Amino acid sequence: MELAESLLAGNRRALARGISVAESGGPPARALLSAIYSRTGRAHIVGVTGSPGAGKSTLVNALALHWRRAGKTVGIIAVDPTSPFTGGAILGDRIRMQPLGGDPGIFIRSMASRGRLGGIAHATSDAIDLLDAAGFDMVLVETVGAGQSEVEIASAAHTTMVIEVPGMGDDVQAIKAGILEIADIFVVNKADREGADATVHQLRAMLRLGGPPRDGWEPPIVPAVAMREEGIAQVAAQVERHLAHLTDTGQKLARERQRVAREFELIVQEAALERVRARLAGGWDALLTRLAEREIDPFSAAGELLA
Amino acid sequence: MELAESLLAGNRRALARGISVAESGGPPARALLSAIYSRTGRAHIVGVTGSPGAGKSTLVNALALHWRRAGKTVGIIAVDPTSPFTGGAILGDRIRMQPLGGDPGIFIRSMASRGRLGGIAHATSDAIDLLDAAGFDMVLVETVGAGQSEVEIASAAHTTMVIEVPGMGDDVQAIKAGILEIADIFVVNKADREGADATVHQLRAMLRLGGPPRDGWEPPIVPAVAMREEGIAQVAAQVERHLAHLTDTGQKLARERQRVAREFELIVQEAALERVRARLAGGWDALLTRLAEREIDPFSAAGELLA
Repeated sequence: MELAESLLAGNRRALARGISVAESGGPPARALLSAIYSRTGRAHIVGVTGSPGAGKSTLVNALALHWRRAGKTVGIIAVDPTSPFTGGAILGDRIRMQPLGGDPGIFIRSMASRGRLGGIAHATSDAIDLLDAAGFDMVLVETVGAGQSEVEIASAAHTTMVIEVPGMGDDVQAIKAGILEIADIFVVNKADREGADATVHQLRAMLRLGGPPRDGWEPPIVPAVAMREEGIAQVAAQVERHLAHLTDTGQKLARERQRVAREFELIVQEAALERVRARLAGGWDALLTRLAEREIDPFSAAGELLA
Repeated sequence: MELAESLLAGNRRALARGISVAESGGPPARALLSAIYSRTGRAHIVGVTGSPGAGKSTLVNALALHWRRAGKTVGIIAVDPTSPFTGGAILGDRIRMQPLGGDPGIFIRSMASRGRLGGIAHATSDAIDLLDAAGFDMVLVETVGAGQSEVEIASAAHTTMVIEVPGMGDDVQAIKAGILEIADIFVVNKADREGADATVHQLRAMLRLGGPPRDGWEPPIVPAVAMREEGIAQVAAQVERHLAHLTDTGQKLARERQRVAREFELIVQEAALERVRARLAGGWDALLTRLAEREIDPFSAAGELLA
């Protein structure tokens, strides 16, 4: 497969086209992803999440520059679940490309959900695999902290970083309970603002309330001012320390299996539905009409179809 | 099935328990939903979406009171995709219940996504079916306008209402392109604020740019002040006029088929995955390990499994 070969050889245009092919889905996407799969599994996948305005993009850009200087290649996937349509994402790409543009060791791609069910999870997984196969050392996946997408990103990443900013209100506390379950590293960004110490203390207190560290890892809390590149080396060091921890304790393979399981379940589900529809052909529409008119119920119908 | 019978007979405790059963999923959920399915298809399902702070809950509560006074029963499902965990939803229920509490003709339920893939769509669909089967005339589904969930709600509803407030910035325009595709009715809430006329004009201009009305329906733009119950009768009238339009033009069955198709696809996918896993038994874990170690690719593996 020519596209897969160019992509694996490091051609950036082929990579960009490959991601578009994957986003469109269908047999071409499957052929491509199947062809590159054996070359995946090498990148360190880092999820970065936080509220709007927390400075995620600035931090991700600063981290990317840091790792580039250390000789690593960096792929960035910016997921925007608030935009089901492409407008925002395209604009975002243009703005984001400027500081990092022109360096073939950095690749940035924005993705919108396009309203497809499980769309973000699916498209993001595929893009991660493509960047991984294309040889990027680090793959950063940046997403707005919006509930479901956070959890999905966490299950797609080896290391999940949660960005906080000073002055978070009490109303955020409810959400924090969930954040604790996914965060491997906390970054308190804009740490030159008033209240930064209080935010660090709050996070530490919440971590303590959460009981003993899970899997022997106590999430560090790192202050940073991404805009001035302060604290970036410390954040990067923690990310690397986390990967070493995962590898040393055998958790890397466990997380990899989780990630693969989730991806595989989606693939099996899509393939199964496709087969059922293909087998029924015109009968599919007739079946939907009977369902809409409540002649049969969907659970019995599904059972009969799959029997 | 006792729970189904109580629920169909109008028992509100059974309805609340039924929604919890559906949320938990698995065979009990399927048995319940299958048992009540033939009694669904009667309610008018109305999706209500808009940005945080647009006054969705106030408007939904005011509409519910309006329809109650007109002798209709009203079920409300408040979907909160920003809270993957239960905390927020429970608190929300308590606050919301107060103005409408004690009236058996009104039922309110908050739902959080719980981080399950397709979780909101699935749980909301099920809850709609249960309220529909329990005999509610109107089922209002309220959701924060957050991209994917909006699109999902629109495909679950007969009528989709989008709430705007005066003073929306230019940056919202990109999202608006998507909103135009799903809105059957626009409400400009807080219409006593400065800029309400401008918002109405902007919306009208955007609708005109969007070309001729789809399916013969030009989305009306209704000003309202939900907090003071102003404009509520006008909004309700437009919702009823939209249903009449759908029925008269045969689009109601078309939307119903769409809704059913989406639900049915999810059910077939879940059932297919469950069967594959059951058939493989211990082999499932072994397969995941081979996938994680890149010995096989997931597409070939899925193809073999389903062959």
